[in-house]
Amino acid sequence: MAEPKENVLMEKIVSLCKRRGFIFQSSEIYGGINGFWDYGPLGAELKRNVKELWWNTMTRQRDDVAGLEATIIMHPKIWEASGHISTFSDPMIDCKTCQGRFRADQVNEISCLQKPSKMVSECHGEKTAPRAFNLMFQTHVGPVLDESAIAYLRPETAQAIFAQFKNVLETSRQKVPFGIAQVGKAFRNEVTPRNFTFRSREFEQMELEFFIKPDEVIEAIHGSVATVPETGHPGEPQPNWGWQAWHQYWVEERVRFYEGIGLDRSTLGFHQQTAAELAHYARACVDILFKFPFSKKDEQGNVTGDELEGIAARSDFDLSQHARFSGKPMGVFDEELRAAWGKLPKEKSDELWRRYYENRKKYLVKMGVEAEPAAKDATNDANGLAKGQYIPHVIEPSAGVDRLILALIANAYSEVTKTDDKGKSETTVMMKFHPRVAPIKVGVMPLLKNKPELVKKAQEVRDRLRPWMNVFYDDGGSIGRRYARQDEAGTPFCVTIDFDTLGEKPELLNTVTIRHRDDGKQERLPITALLNWLLPKVR
Amino acid sequence: MAEPKENVLMEKIVSLCKRRGFIFQSSEIYGGINGFWDYGPLGAELKRNVKELWWNTMTRQRDDVAGLEATIIMHPKIWEASGHISTFSDPMIDCKTCQGRFRADQVNEISCLQKPSKMVSECHGEKTAPRAFNLMFQTHVGPVLDESAIAYLRPETAQAIFAQFKNVLETSRQKVPFGIAQVGKAFRNEVTPRNFTFRSREFEQMELEFFIKPDEVIEAIHGSVATVPETGHPGEPQPNWGWQAWHQYWVEERVRFYEGIGLDRSTLGFHQQTAAELAHYARACVDILFKFPFSKKDEQGNVTGDELEGIAARSDFDLSQHARFSGKPMGVFDEELRAAWGKLPKEKSDELWRRYYENRKKYLVKMGVEAEPAAKDATNDANGLAKGQYIPHVIEPSAGVDRLILALIANAYSEVTKTDDKGKSETTVMMKFHPRVAPIKVGVMPLLKNKPELVKKAQEVRDRLRPWMNVFYDDGGSIGRRYARQDEAGTPFCVTIDFDTLGEKPELLNTVTIRHRDDGKQERLPITALLNWLLPKVR
Repeated sequence: MAEPKENVLMEKIVSLCKRRGFIFQSSEIYGGINGFWDYGPLGAELKRNVKELWWNTMTRQRDDVAGLEATIIMHPKIWEASGHISTFSDPMIDCKTCQGRFRADQVNEISCLQKPSKMVSECHGEKTAPRAFNLMFQTHVGPVLDESAIAYLRPETAQAIFAQFKNVLETSRQKVPFGIAQVGKAFRNEVTPRNFTFRSREFEQMELEFFIKPDEVIEAIHGSVATVPETGHPGEPQPNWGWQAWHQYWVEERVRFYEGIGLDRSTLGFHQQTAAELAHYARACVDILFKFPFSKKDEQGNVTGDELEGIAARSDFDLSQHARFSGKPMGVFDEELRAAWGKLPKEKSDELWRRYYENRKKYLVKMGVEAEPAAKDATNDANGLAKGQYIPHVIEPSAGVDRLILALIANAYSEVTKTDDKGKSETTVMMKFHPRVAPIKVGVMPLLKNKPELVKKAQEVRDRLRPWMNVFYDDGGSIGRRYARQDEAGTPFCVTIDFDTLGEKPELLNTVTIRHRDDGKQERLPITALLNWLLPKVR
Repeated sequence: MAEPKENVLMEKIVSLCKRRGFIFQSSEIYGGINGFWDYGPLGAELKRNVKELWWNTMTRQRDDVAGLEATIIMHPKIWEASGHISTFSDPMIDCKTCQGRFRADQVNEISCLQKPSKMVSECHGEKTAPRAFNLMFQTHVGPVLDESAIAYLRPETAQAIFAQFKNVLETSRQKVPFGIAQVGKAFRNEVTPRNFTFRSREFEQMELEFFIKPDEVIEAIHGSVATVPETGHPGEPQPNWGWQAWHQYWVEERVRFYEGIGLDRSTLGFHQQTAAELAHYARACVDILFKFPFSKKDEQGNVTGDELEGIAARSDFDLSQHARFSGKPMGVFDEELRAAWGKLPKEKSDELWRRYYENRKKYLVKMGVEAEPAAKDATNDANGLAKGQYIPHVIEPSAGVDRLILALIANAYSEVTKTDDKGKSETTVMMKFHPRVAPIKVGVMPLLKNKPELVKKAQEVRDRLRPWMNVFYDDGGSIGRRYARQDEAGTPFCVTIDFDTLGEKPELLNTVTIRHRDDGKQERLPITALLNWLLPKVR
């Protein structure tokens, strides 16, 4: 039976990743370790570029976002507050006969360890009832190995942002609406890591928590909440935006980001989570999907894709939880709200008070607070409005770095078949990375390595470009071979220094050939113009 | 009793770090977690700049270094091979009376938990003999919590480089001498984290492993090993350099790096490890120190400083260990060696063979291999030379990111006292960061926030600079207050847009004032010239 085409493609991608040093199995010389992957020289550059572009776009290019870099190991109470200790788990079944442990939802897909012809659900092994297996990696901090020393590797970077919300607010001269951005490693002890780097146990996230005013506050200040079209980019942020406008805004901003690094809208999919799928505290969540070679088809035969990023409207759940578990207030003071509230008709302020109160009470009851104290606390919360106080809501665009790298690699992968005069054809790989993410921006090559004048001039060109971008200097083999090597690495431009550069044709003195990866076209430019020609293309 | 001046300074630094958002205690709202620190908005930028400069200097700016980004959790055998499982530990004493656990070498410095007036060494508690406490954080990978699932958080980034040496060599078109560079988190379960972020449990490293030919190979190819002066930079790398020249080269390269980001040689110290201090496999190690406010004085009353970076000559120890533990060959083939060996006088090749053999045998015996098999293996190793095969040696410049950040903060910290006309004086903090590492490169300020033309023009300037550097736009408060805020953040330049910018004095139309942080001097530049004026200073 022929393997499905998409699996062949995945195999080719995995093979290229190893062969060209994009991705290696972690600890390969020791047989590897399931769910862990290393980035080789090209992969490390690709990943750095992606993280740097995200950071620049989300933080440095905006007035309304501040950065954070928190630790992977944090106080364990954080994971109580976030709910990860109680609910971040997969249901597992143990088989007492074969000693295997299986995910309860996969017993129809996984073979019995003793009788591989049977699925776990069909075999005669004696099995336990499903039990929760927490996905957080656990460790101990300090010299004593007891319960009090238990800590976890963060399963997401987001919680550190919530825990440091007040510190950042107080030191960054930001006020709501504003965001806190973070890039960093996270860990999930996945029972079955799969699809190459797509679902691994150690991965990296790029998360923004963007804090906004609750709709009741917007209404109190601006009279009403702005309505925005349900699709398309709602434009520049406005003071009267409620959570739906902000949510829509961030979905579209994130899609623009992906388009800006070479993932056209046609390669993406979108999934609006249904009420049943949404986390209990979330008001909406849109997943941005990429159509991976391993992505399944839906009932209509369409590939919808697998998740690159989720953009969730998380209400005030996270800050509220940390306020309750830490005993530290997480509300903010807003002078505009205080002033506006005093001028509201009583009818209006009563209505807003009531809505804010109901939301707070609903949250508290859901979190297990008894009805009476919940009503009392919710009353306090709603009374804060008149004093200009509220707990911010949050929109969370949360992206996986490794998934994005895999998407960029899959998207870039293409094969070029050339047939020579004698009818002999050769297929080579070309990685069509967008120049902004390409690991190497430009290959610099003297036509011949044994001509010192060519080499000297080529090194001058290399040294001129190198402070500004990643350059690969290559003098080995025929120029065609060198181009092919750079095509496989995904280098968008190659610069060749030839005898015309040295003035063999006087009118071409100190000019070089630039060769474009995708169409092989060549053009000639003065060396002095090279940097300014390249820079806007690769940044 | 007045506190010593240096402790006052440390307190001021810690306070500034929190106040301005450089460094927060991790999980502060939950009372913190000992030995873990978060970087706030300014700290995150500072840290990014330092890591980016290191990566650029060590990797992108060189032809002979490739990058790597490996996982934190690796196969546990790696730590057997590296020796961390058997030897990476502190001796600990348990007190059965007070249940405390103490480092055996600190019992004279730490108070008894029950009788704080007594040191642990003096109290009457019943104590165990010292036992090894391994400093690696331990966790379990996969759903089963048994011994086979034990894994560790890496205590250093270096080992991943050795484990992936062959993969990188085969995919990167490098040949010895060349290096592999990596930046990433590492974890050590320090018994007593201390000195703010200097010794913490989660930290980040910037490590280069630079692989070189053993001296015997250099001698075979070049006739002799180059001699270089014992001090000073030995200049551009030469093919006939042995390990001492390379070691000297990397010490000086690293010092130049520190000088290039504002740490003058006078702020640094150097420590050449003595034979007793050296790890058994190391031939030499130079520590680059920084004179921190908490650094102790030596017997002569001089502050020598605390370690920023160690540059070690580690022989072929690491690759040899991984070859033995993985069973995978770690040697390289060198055609030049093979060709040269055939032409050596027998006397010379015998001598080189013997030296290589002795080194290999010494290593194997030290690693516990019996004399006879060690002699056999060493013979095999030395016989490889004639076939052009050898195991590379390594020079390792290994730097701590967090220590460097703390050094940069301590170095930048200064106080400015101004007295006004009425004799009232005010002391403010100025962080004199080198522009290349400063978190914010330029503050952009309209003279007044309520003049739309000024604001519009200021935002134009902001948007022009922002794609190239981190800009802080500030329109709040008097211009003096805004300058002071940027001084405290360490911003080297402020640009002010005033009425002359708008053409009040026609000859100054579209010019702005640039104010220098350190001396307060101002100059006037056209907006169009601003970017090119700033860029070379901040990169």
